Formats: sequence, structure tokens, C-alpha cells
Amino acid sequence: MAARTVKLAVIPGDGIGPEVVAEGLKVLDAAASGHGISFETTEYELGASRWHATGETLPDSVEEELRGHDAILLGAVGDPSVPSGVLERGLLLRLRFAFSHYVNLRPVRLYPGVGTPLAGVRPEDMDILVVREGTEGPYAGMGGVLRKGTPDEIATQDSVNTRLGVERVVRYAFAKAAQRPRKQLTLVHKDNVLTFAGELWQRVVREVGAEFPGVSVDYSHVDAAAMFFVSQPQRFDVVVTDNLFGDIITDLGAAVAGGIGLAASGNINPENDFPSMFEPVHGSAPDIAGQGKADPTATLLSTAIMLDHLGLDAAASRVERAVSEDLRARAELGADERTTSAIGDEIAKRVAGQG
Amino acid sequence: MAARTVKLAVIPGDGIGPEVVAEGLKVLDAAASGHGISFETTEYELGASRWHATGETLPDSVEEELRGHDAILLGAVGDPSVPSGVLERGLLLRLRFAFSHYVNLRPVRLYPGVGTPLAGVRPEDMDILVVREGTEGPYAGMGGVLRKGTPDEIATQDSVNTRLGVERVVRYAFAKAAQRPRKQLTLVHKDNVLTFAGELWQRVVREVGAEFPGVSVDYSHVDAAAMFFVSQPQRFDVVVTDNLFGDIITDLGAAVAGGIGLAASGNINPENDFPSMFEPVHGSAPDIAGQGKADPTATLLSTAIMLDHLGLDAAASRVERAVSEDLRARAELGADERTTSAIGDEIAKRVAGQG
Ligand SMILES: CC(C)[C@H](C(=O)O)[C@@H](O)C(=O)O
Ligand SMILES: CC(C)[C@H](C(=O)O)[C@@H](O)C(=O)O
Repeated sequence: MAARTVKLAVIPGDGIGPEVVAEGLKVLDAAASGHGISFETTEYELGASRWHATGETLPDSVEEELRGHDAILLGAVGDPSVPSGVLERGLLLRLRFAFSHYVNLRPVRLYPGVGTPLAGVRPEDMDILVVREGTEGPYAGMGGVLRKGTPDEIATQDSVNTRLGVERVVRYAFAKAAQRPRKQLTLVHKDNVLTFAGELWQRVVREVGAEFPGVSVDYSHVDAAAMFFVSQPQRFDVVVTDNLFGDIITDLGAAVAGGIGLAASGNINPENDFPSMFEPVHGSAPDIAGQGKADPTATLLSTAIMLDHLGLDAAASRVERAVSEDLRARAELGADERTTSAIGDEIAKRVAGQG
Repeated sequence: MAARTVKLAVIPGDGIGPEVVAEGLKVLDAAASGHGISFETTEYELGASRWHATGETLPDSVEEELRGHDAILLGAVGDPSVPSGVLERGLLLRLRFAFSHYVNLRPVRLYPGVGTPLAGVRPEDMDILVVREGTEGPYAGMGGVLRKGTPDEIATQDSVNTRLGVERVVRYAFAKAAQRPRKQLTLVHKDNVLTFAGELWQRVVREVGAEFPGVSVDYSHVDAAAMFFVSQPQRFDVVVTDNLFGDIITDLGAAVAGGIGLAASGNINPENDFPSMFEPVHGSAPDIAGQGKADPTATLLSTAIMLDHLGLDAAASRVERAVSEDLRARAELGADERTTSAIGDEIAKRVAGQG
């Protein structure tokens, strides 16, 4: 067995970020040890406290260092003491953009045993892979303000969609759909209103779709998709959508698939020109920080996406299986009173037990 | 009792539009007759068939005629045979914009007896009034395409937010919140990413809020709001939001509050400088058109919003009470096998019975 060392940058961040990241590292070690894999981790203190101390969100030198890693594990950034947008734009989005994380991969999957607020929905009804675009759209940050503070003020916010950007994420989504049993891809957009962007997305789906004759293509307006996530989640297999629509429907997806405590994500640069970054969908939750109350599951499932991206499929499966077993065990237990680290310990043990 | 004649323009539109509008008129008559109110209706054939026949979506002369009415009742527009966006932009949005329907009022309310897909949610948990901006944002239609059809293509889509447009809808929402028992207003936006538009919305809410000291103000990112509509709908009383976010969360709201068959809306110009327009949130549903399968309830509730807007409060209450009784009766019946017109007949009878 060839030994493999993964250079992993760790950004614990704010609030519950450090707590859930600690469990992520614990479980990664359990998945690696005895399999010739090791993690060489470097921790970066970025987020609210650094910003308060130095005014920095992401120094260029740190960006440069991060670039030298194989992957990044991020907990959460954001704190009410920092003006809205400063850390999001200055750190999180900056990394997604700088490292060309054009695929934001977000499974919406109901694990057996996990409660959903939707009456009558079963795990087999909800197994959606959302491929959210990660580097453009309304997230480009373009726009501005004219006549600020006057009655004639105008603020614009521009969604930028390029052929390059749309095509690469659409092709990735088709490839994913082709690997799944149902082989179905749904474009989610709002092409009857956002006609310029919508027409480009539709055209690219049509053109790239010709390369994947085995994949059936569907379309849903984003408003209808939000409805269907609740009323008919089984409509969807792989969903490809723009940055903002993807943000909204994946939080909705988290709500219907057992809560934000379970929602995992990968910010992926498929070509590996840059390190990809893995993070739970939830935020920093300052209200419960430091109390051992956070559920680390979303982070653990994010590490499984990371292992898979790194080509360490067997390790990825070990983590996913252990999480899935833990979720089923919880259902039998009833109320889950375990602390963050107790959950991490038990899942790490299950991972190790799978040899 | 002073007699009042309401000049009502009727746009049945496509698909199930004509069927549900017929019931709307039936119930309006029942609510008016014997109360000194009468409706003088003029029907306008607009929508897919007119577009196919003449290429017109909304001739200027028709817009001019519509302007002379007190209100507009619209069924639904749109058909798969018409390219996406043509009727939406050329007819529906054109009317909203031309007649300055800056308030798009969409109650998200769970009526007693109505099933919700959300386990354990009760009617008192879901009584949200969404005040969606209706005349700007990403719906402005601004943007364009550069280098179309080349690998270097760029399509932009610009959200336009003016002080004028934001302030008037925010003030309306505060006034609505001030009249409700909870007196709470939540701004839904994405100010950590859409920083230019978000800052304007936040600032206007702060400034206008000073005029309404009795209303408590809250904020939610749109992704979190989508989650909360499912997991904690009782968080919300009045919600004010931009055109696109409002589109998405009100369809989601319809899904959690008993389905799109019940979701009503008013496109309102509060100053009555132009006729306001009332329409069900659902679309033209061509798959069930002409079969008497459509539920006219959303249209009936939309006529109640219309009556209320016209100052005919008592008539509005009669319609709403009758619908509410019908919904409760359905719950006792089990499966509802009634046709569109049978539902309309029964509700009209209930309205008339309320004297
Ligand atoms: C924090 C925020 C900028 C971010 C986003 O909108 O992408 C978050 O909501 C997410 O979904 O990862
Ligand atoms: C048909 C479409 C243009 C419209 C909108 O997006 O406003 C519809 O979805 C609605 O919500 O009334």
C-alpha cells in the first residue's frame, strides 16, 4: 500500500467552527490510520477575532500559503460583531473565487432514521445532488450605488454569467448525473424573468447535453423548485443551478433533509489547479458556541466529500457509513444528549471499527 | 346604502385561468348582490392564443383601456407553446410595472382543516404576510449579452434598487405590521453577499422604522428564511423582501400552507393611481386545463384581497369566511372530488347565506 500524505489547511473560524472542525480532524485520522494515509495539517486563524485584532480578513501571504495545500477544511466564519459581508466577502467568497471553486457540491439526502419535517417523506424520496455554481452570478460582487443617501439613490447588483463559467459547471453536473442510477439533470433557473442569463444557461445545458445522451434533462423555475423540494422531492436527481438559487435551495434542502446540522458541502475545483475547500453548510451559530452543543455531523460528511475528491474513495465510504450508522442509532435512542466531541468520538470509533 | 359600481377588467388568460376566473366572478357577484355593490366587467382576451394569432402580448390601446378600470382580475398566463418569458415579460410584468404595482401582497396562511406537508405545524404557527416588492430588483429586465454564441460570451442580469422603490414598499409593510397583533417586520435579503442592494434595504428599513416605534424589526438572510419557512414558520409575522426573493419564498410558502391551489395575491398600487391587479399565485397548469379539476380557491381568496383593497371590507370578509368554512368542510369530507365550478357554487352559496 503506497503511503499518501495529504497537506490539509484547517480554518476553524468563528463560533462553533473550531468545535466541529476538531471532530472533523478526529474522524479524518480514524479514517486514515492503518490505511497508509496521513494528514499534515496547518491551522490558520482567520475570521472574526483576527479581523478585530488586525483588520485583516485574508492576507495575501495566507492566500499564497493555502494555495500550497491539497485541500482546506473550514468550520464557519461570521460573527454579529463584524459588519455583515466583511468576512463573507473578504474570506469565504474570496477563497471560493481565488481558488476557482466553480462547483459547490451539496447533497440533499435524507438518511435512514433521520427525522424530516415533511410528513410521509421517506429516505428514497430525497436523494438530490445539488451542483451549485460557485464563482459568478450575483455573487460576483459587481454593481454599485449612485446618489447615495439622496431620494434619488440607485443601488445595482449585477449577476455575471459567462459561457466559461456556466459551461464548466453544467458539464460537471452532467458527468455526475451520468454516474447515478436515475441519470437525470434538472436545471433550476428563472428564465422567464432573468431572460439574458436564463437563455445562456438553457443553451449551454442543451449543447453540453448532446455529449450525454444517456442523461435526461428537465427544467424548473426556482420558485417552483422551492415548492417541489417540499411537496415532491423525488422529482429531482442532480440539480444544476446558479450561485444564488443554489444558496437558497440548498438551505431549504437542509431543512427538509433533517436540518442544517447534517448538511455538507464541498467547494470544488475539479481540475485540482487549486485546493478545494470543504465546509458544513451551517454558519458559526454564536448562540451555542463553546458549549459542546453543535452537531459535528455536517462537518464529518464534508470530510467524506473531501476524501472522495482526493481520490480516497475507501476512506470516504468509511466515514459516510459510520455517520449513517450513527444517525440510525440516534433514531433508536430518541433524544440525543451527546456533546459535540462525544458524537465525534463515537463516529471515529465506528470508522476505526470498519478496519 | 350608497350604490357602488366597480369597473372590473377581467383577463382570464391561459390554461386553467378562464375556469378559475369564472368562479371568481361568481363569488364576487354573490358577495356584492344585496349590498349595493355591482361589478361592471369587461373581458380582455390576452395570453397565448392572442399571441399566436396576432403576435401581440399587450397592445398599447388595451393597456390604455385597462387603466380606466378600478381593478383587474387575472387568471393565469403562460403556455408551453410560447417561448419562456414572452407572456411573462410582455403581459404580466408589463402590467405590474406600468401600473406601478409596487406591493405584491401574498399571505402565507394555514387555514384550519387544511393539510400541510409539515408535520406538527398548526394554523396558529403560520400566519405570514409577505410584502414582495413588485416593480424593480432583478425583475427590472436590465442586463444584456456580449459576444453571444462565442466561448467568451457574457450575460448579465442587473438588479435595480431605488430609494423610491424600496422606501415605498418598506413603508407599506411597516404600516401593515403596525395593524397586526404581533407588530413584527422581518426584512428578508442577502446583505452579506448583495452588499450594494442589501445596504440600501437595511438603511431604509432602519430609517422608515423610526416612524413605527411600535413595530419590532428583524432580519433574515433569504437562505435562512427558506429554512425557517419549513422549520419555524412562527418566526414570521410580516415579511418585506425584494421581487425575486419574494417570488421564491411565496411559492415555498404556498407549498407549506396547503398548496399552490390556495395561494392568493394582489399586485397593488396603494395610492390608486392605477388599477391594482389580483391573481392566484399558481400558473396556467395546461396539463389540467379544461377538465374542471382546478381549485378556484386561490382566485377566490385573491378576490377577497381585491375587495379589501377597494375598501369593501365587509364583502371581503364574507368571501374569506366562506372560503374558510369550505376548507374546514373539505377536511371533514376527506377526498375532495368536486369540480372547479362545484366548489365555486358552494362557496358562492355560503357567501350569499352570510347575508
Ligand atoms: C455565508 C454566505 C456568504 C454563504 C453563501 O451565501 O454562499 C453561505 O450562505 C453558504 O451557503 O455557504
Ligand atoms: C410568471 C412569473 C413571471 C411570476 C413572477 O415571477 O413574478 C410568477 O412566478 C409569480 O410569482 O407571480
